Amino acid sequence: MPDRAAEVRIRGMHAAIERDGEPDLVAVEEPLEIRVDGRPLAVTMRTPGDDELLAAGFLHGEGLIDRWPRVGPTADLAVNAVEVAGPLLRDPGSRSFYTTSSCGVCGKGAIEQVAVDAPPLPLDADLEPLPRTLLAALPERLVQPEFARTGGLHATGLFGWDGELLCVREDVGRHNAFDKVVGWALERGELPLRQRLLCVSGRLSFELVQKAVLARAPVLVGVGAPTSLAVELARDRELTLCGFARGGRVNVYSGEQRVA
Amino acid sequence: MPDRAAEVRIRGMHAAIERDGEPDLVAVEEPLEIRVDGRPLAVTMRTPGDDELLAAGFLHGEGLIDRWPRVGPTADLAVNAVEVAGPLLRDPGSRSFYTTSSCGVCGKGAIEQVAVDAPPLPLDADLEPLPRTLLAALPERLVQPEFARTGGLHATGLFGWDGELLCVREDVGRHNAFDKVVGWALERGELPLRQRLLCVSGRLSFELVQKAVLARAPVLVGVGAPTSLAVELARDRELTLCGFARGGRVNVYSGEQRVA
Repeated sequence: MPDRAAEVRIRGMHAAIERDGEPDLVAVEEPLEIRVDGRPLAVTMRTPGDDELLAAGFLHGEGLIDRWPRVGPTADLAVNAVEVAGPLLRDPGSRSFYTTSSCGVCGKGAIEQVAVDAPPLPLDADLEPLPRTLLAALPERLVQPEFARTGGLHATGLFGWDGELLCVREDVGRHNAFDKVVGWALERGELPLRQRLLCVSGRLSFELVQKAVLARAPVLVGVGAPTSLAVELARDRELTLCGFARGGRVNVYSGEQRVA
Repeated sequence: MPDRAAEVRIRGMHAAIERDGEPDLVAVEEPLEIRVDGRPLAVTMRTPGDDELLAAGFLHGEGLIDRWPRVGPTADLAVNAVEVAGPLLRDPGSRSFYTTSSCGVCGKGAIEQVAVDAPPLPLDADLEPLPRTLLAALPERLVQPEFARTGGLHATGLFGWDGELLCVREDVGRHNAFDKVVGWALERGELPLRQRLLCVSGRLSFELVQKAVLARAPVLVGVGAPTSLAVELARDRELTLCGFARGGRVNVYSGEQRVA
């Protein structure tokens, strides 16, 4: 397993006390290039580890794959890249909503693009409504082993409907942590994420809601605040979106029908 | 001024108390397209406001401009875009370190690319060493009016050497908040940011250190943790990098010579 924490010497300062040259751990950040059939598609600054999961989850969140692909390190191991075998579901250049000028580069256009890719999330009659206390407590169950060491990583966790933690991944990039969890589910044939809960350690942006909708997870919980466009997209696709889950509290911004 | 906070109805939950339908404020997030001479260059999800500063600061951080450009809304005001008049300093396609396969897409390559654009930051003999208490207190001076309302915004502040707050900008994207401050300085002819301190409300990534180095700010302080590559780049370019600035404490990861 690659190192996800690196030791550096710091000058820590607390009141008048100096801790000169004391070793400290920081989260490792390195670029990773994602290649499809030998052609560079994207580069992300990420924490090494689970690079194949990251690549697959990223491609899934872009609507470019819908099953686990052939993926592995490049032949040249000195290159920080993963190679994915195509074909993709569509030309990546034509994908992004914002590259089409017809939508006017607006929030409405962004939401409509997600709608093209994914119908509203169904209300599952087999599922018990979720106790609020369970939703509020998810972040505490989101064990972050590396965060405790470095204080510098974001986490995403996948939970069963009963709140059991199934998978957690950490990364300097919050989107990367999310992509790694989706990649984990994709590899195990666990997509779509029906009857699953996702929880993130940070804020809730449009992109994270988009990724959750495309993975078909009906519930997304965050420790931080949602943005306006995240709430709009969640309501449009009928995702249960919960923010500020901390200290026994949680705000429900969308999809209250799934909450007891 | 555009709205930076939007009102939504939520179900707030605290223990057994429900606050059904209570209005809550969330940070506004909308896409913005940055165009150069009519051609789309990039799209960012941002909080509306100071779009010209954002565009100019972004281009500066990419090494594409070195002075305030002609910039404004597009002729079609229905489009969420800003138009920048070129020419740029170089072809944007050739810019990014990671698009050249020769560097092996590694941290070393990324650091070398910044070195091409910017020499090490000089130690200024005219400047008094910075008291640690001042560095530790910068986040408290980083007034965040919108954050208090929405809990969902990142902030970047520009300070004088004495700790006086000169400019602060907030955004759902931490890079955007940083770019807006750099754009603000660029418009006023205040670049390079010699004898200035920058402070961010979040974590310290490679990209933020890169932007600080290109703006020639000698000091960057963050409330959160730095990454390994952020520390490496700061040491390489002799930037004073401080993290975990909170509760009267601060860790100095690089450039200790500027600290008393």
